[in-house]
Amino acid sequence: MPHIAVDAMSGDSGPSTVIPAIKDLVAHHPEVTFHLVGDSSTLQAELQRLHLQDHERIQLHHASQVVGMDEAPSQALRGKRDSSMHVAIALLRDGHADAVVSAGNTGALMAMGKVFLRTIPGIDRPAIAAFLPTTTGRFLALDLGANVDCHPEHLLQFAVMGSILAERVMGVPKPRVGLLNIGSEEIKGNEQVKEASLLLRAARLNFIGNVEGSDIYRGVADVVVCDGFVGNVALKTSEGLATMISHEMRASYTQGLYGKLAYLVNRPILQRLRKRLDSRQYNGATLLGLNGIVIKSHGNADRYAFARAVEVAIAEAKHRLTLHIAEVIQDNLDPVVRNSA
Amino acid sequence: MPHIAVDAMSGDSGPSTVIPAIKDLVAHHPEVTFHLVGDSSTLQAELQRLHLQDHERIQLHHASQVVGMDEAPSQALRGKRDSSMHVAIALLRDGHADAVVSAGNTGALMAMGKVFLRTIPGIDRPAIAAFLPTTTGRFLALDLGANVDCHPEHLLQFAVMGSILAERVMGVPKPRVGLLNIGSEEIKGNEQVKEASLLLRAARLNFIGNVEGSDIYRGVADVVVCDGFVGNVALKTSEGLATMISHEMRASYTQGLYGKLAYLVNRPILQRLRKRLDSRQYNGATLLGLNGIVIKSHGNADRYAFARAVEVAIAEAKHRLTLHIAEVIQDNLDPVVRNSA
Repeated sequence: MPHIAVDAMSGDSGPSTVIPAIKDLVAHHPEVTFHLVGDSSTLQAELQRLHLQDHERIQLHHASQVVGMDEAPSQALRGKRDSSMHVAIALLRDGHADAVVSAGNTGALMAMGKVFLRTIPGIDRPAIAAFLPTTTGRFLALDLGANVDCHPEHLLQFAVMGSILAERVMGVPKPRVGLLNIGSEEIKGNEQVKEASLLLRAARLNFIGNVEGSDIYRGVADVVVCDGFVGNVALKTSEGLATMISHEMRASYTQGLYGKLAYLVNRPILQRLRKRLDSRQYNGATLLGLNGIVIKSHGNADRYAFARAVEVAIAEAKHRLTLHIAEVIQDNLDPVVRNSA
Repeated sequence: MPHIAVDAMSGDSGPSTVIPAIKDLVAHHPEVTFHLVGDSSTLQAELQRLHLQDHERIQLHHASQVVGMDEAPSQALRGKRDSSMHVAIALLRDGHADAVVSAGNTGALMAMGKVFLRTIPGIDRPAIAAFLPTTTGRFLALDLGANVDCHPEHLLQFAVMGSILAERVMGVPKPRVGLLNIGSEEIKGNEQVKEASLLLRAARLNFIGNVEGSDIYRGVADVVVCDGFVGNVALKTSEGLATMISHEMRASYTQGLYGKLAYLVNRPILQRLRKRLDSRQYNGATLLGLNGIVIKSHGNADRYAFARAVEVAIAEAKHRLTLHIAEVIQDNLDPVVRNSA
């Protein structure tokens, strides 16, 4: 029976997005208890508005502070002990919850996670891992920005954790793990990637070698591993191009009467396309490697998107992801590697 | 009067693409002489087919070999002294041409450029620089894959060269130079980028600071600088996503009668969009930093795209790009930086 702690003050709209999302989920997940953390009166009011005030599987935990979106992580650690984010993490740390979901400040969430939960034994640096769409389904990408200047051993750890997540939680048998590189040939790449390639090849993984950025959306790999700097830049650049394409399309459609007519005819198709590629579907990145399940939602997530993030938490909690990683990690990581990390 | 050496055997189709492209250009550029390099009889036959055999501004230079698309650069250097690629570069080296255009093996082209042309004094590593579209125009991105594991000083050199290209050749006054990073804050980024930021800030550039991948297509900068590994991955990933979006759109359109009807209505708009974002428009990357103008076309470029690459060469030759870079480089690069490069 998973207990999910929710940072209900987080995100652009806080409770007015979070609580409707929980309402959408509570009936579909009869085995889950939701622990909403934040200002009690605000949360109570929102629950009442949605007729959820006495729900037996929704519990409130008061927190008097909120971590600011631009607050420096170190500052949040020091000065926001009674923030909804910290109280939620404390619930997880103390065993009252199996997972935390927050749409708040990523840096602060990761910092609190590292300090109060620590990392799974054998993991040096937790990574931000998220699912992205492919033409046939989805793949897991990590690290998407938590760590810059990764060592090859960190990439190995990302690969092992990502593979476990894909296998246990997404049900992918023997997930294909690829290393994001500038070419498929072994000799290509920077020093970090070339060394990481050797480590991945030696590990107990279904390692398919290097994958290029142009191939990942075709579904060539189930897990794509990269340095946090590279991953973040690649992700942001792709999003930027998608936005530009979208912008150009809209511009084309508003030109003249034909454009407007064509838009009307085209609208259901565009809607289907948007739905297919909807980033809201994929909302919910895992801070993978913390000794507890912590899920980060986009700050601007709407009710639908936030619910998807909570579902990631539910799935990982049900499959006891952290426990599995801890068990498997010791086997997978070569003693030579662990000592040099 | 620019002289442009063209590797006429290069690319997927060689002369049957190259020579039609030259035909499209020769009338529009009455001041340019084209030096086509390759197998004389093949070239002669193609010229005759297009009624260009006696054109006063098209000269032939025989070369008996061709560099293979998958040939190792070191092998091409050793064994292909009479390749169309090498002969073209020799024309530039010996002052018979002002620029070289090739659609051949990038690694071999760069290797030959480095060995036979060397780099502009003050430049350690030439970068691959190309224009990419924005919602309002275009921007120059470099390095797109020539160099992995760049030092901060290399990024400074890329910035200076890119700025000169944008200013002199594209006519952009005080080009805004941005450093591709994972966030706009100064503290963000890996060691390389953080140190490069200091160097760029101290140089005589219109440095606007960090730019995120999601912003570059909005035209926030005229020149975007990055490590070759990062640049190549970001570019390939963006292209992969664009391909996927395109694929999903096509799939949406073929579904059912409505889909097909909508496609017909939508076609002119899609065509306009494709034209706007057409990568063929932007074909022609500069191997920026070699002591001579060398332009690389995509191997699969068609006649239109190859002509665009040749026009890049013409523009850079007219504006004496290499000379300008050499002049400006000494002023811009701090003696401290140069000695530690």
